[in-house]
Amino acid sequence: MSGRGEDGRTAPRLSPRNKRAEIVAVATEYFGETGYEDTRWADVATAVGLGPTALYHYFESKQQCLFEILVEGVEDALAEFLRHNQGEFAEAFPAVVRGSFERSDREARRARVLVAEQGLVRHPRPAPREENARVLAFSLIKKYEAGWRDLLAAGMSAGVIPTADPDLLTRAVIGTYNSVWAWYRPEGRLGLDEVADFYVPRLLAIAGLPE
Amino acid sequence: MSGRGEDGRTAPRLSPRNKRAEIVAVATEYFGETGYEDTRWADVATAVGLGPTALYHYFESKQQCLFEILVEGVEDALAEFLRHNQGEFAEAFPAVVRGSFERSDREARRARVLVAEQGLVRHPRPAPREENARVLAFSLIKKYEAGWRDLLAAGMSAGVIPTADPDLLTRAVIGTYNSVWAWYRPEGRLGLDEVADFYVPRLLAIAGLPE
Repeated sequence: MSGRGEDGRTAPRLSPRNKRAEIVAVATEYFGETGYEDTRWADVATAVGLGPTALYHYFESKQQCLFEILVEGVEDALAEFLRHNQGEFAEAFPAVVRGSFERSDREARRARVLVAEQGLVRHPRPAPREENARVLAFSLIKKYEAGWRDLLAAGMSAGVIPTADPDLLTRAVIGTYNSVWAWYRPEGRLGLDEVADFYVPRLLAIAGLPE
Repeated sequence: MSGRGEDGRTAPRLSPRNKRAEIVAVATEYFGETGYEDTRWADVATAVGLGPTALYHYFESKQQCLFEILVEGVEDALAEFLRHNQGEFAEAFPAVVRGSFERSDREARRARVLVAEQGLVRHPRPAPREENARVLAFSLIKKYEAGWRDLLAAGMSAGVIPTADPDLLTRAVIGTYNSVWAWYRPEGRLGLDEVADFYVPRLLAIAGLPE
């Protein structure tokens, strides 16, 4: 994920690291709006002012770029989860759920890509850089899911929520939460605060947390 | 969607209509397991014993086939919805929710493809047969969503569930329901009856229907 200094020798504008971040930002926009499948990697190259060869210096392929977007998205979501997951279940769970709606516009666009394309992490890739990024994305998604499952299981053990299949409850909570990003748009009629006001009590109800 | 008789002149095995159904079944399997993006249309041709030219007789492209799978999936879901949506909200809503888990293995695999790939219906296609199938899939999805929204709005009007933004509630209910098909496998450890026992009360709770 480090910038590559050799490439910046004549570029007066952006350091390689910033250029990489620019590619990721533009690709996230394309993947979210045009769809990953329909995005032409050459269009991303044009949009960031790079030829295919220079772009290849940063990313082997569209697929590698996608997996790195997923890695960054899940890393941030996991850090946010851990930051709010403090103390007793009855406080931690609502805090974690509410916290998962605190997303910048950029993070919301990235969450949209993550939710739409995360199925791709299940399929091994032949190219090494793609495969490395895929394996990392996959393991982070598993870690994120395990975080929710352990939290919910702790709530059951403490008798705060009814006992249920923890895997199934984790899927229901994450599935409902993730579905937001399929339709939410930063420029849409609802702000994320309003979306959270609507979804948070329903996510608590799915887990069976008394109001 | 009609079979084309000219193609069957020497084929002793399947009528064109059955051949088309076979292609759809095999493609659904591939799209669900390998992922739509990673499925090679030529592999589907091989699996059904057709060359690319013969396959083209049935479907212009992988994309057209996908859209027709979506069309069939939403048509069936809509028919099932209407069949259960009878009488007062307090009876109709639980019946519709429960009924949405009555799926054969084949229908469950199709639902998986539908949920994973329905984002593609938002993007116009240049090829006419693709575009026709896309527009039909898109309009059916809108009709299906409108069915849920009207039902939920009727429950609010009748005072059976709390007043809420009907679009948001529709998204929450359908989003939670759809998330099942991302992980459910006919050959997995849980049967659809167990999945329904878990999800149905939680979907009713999302809408705020008293137990």
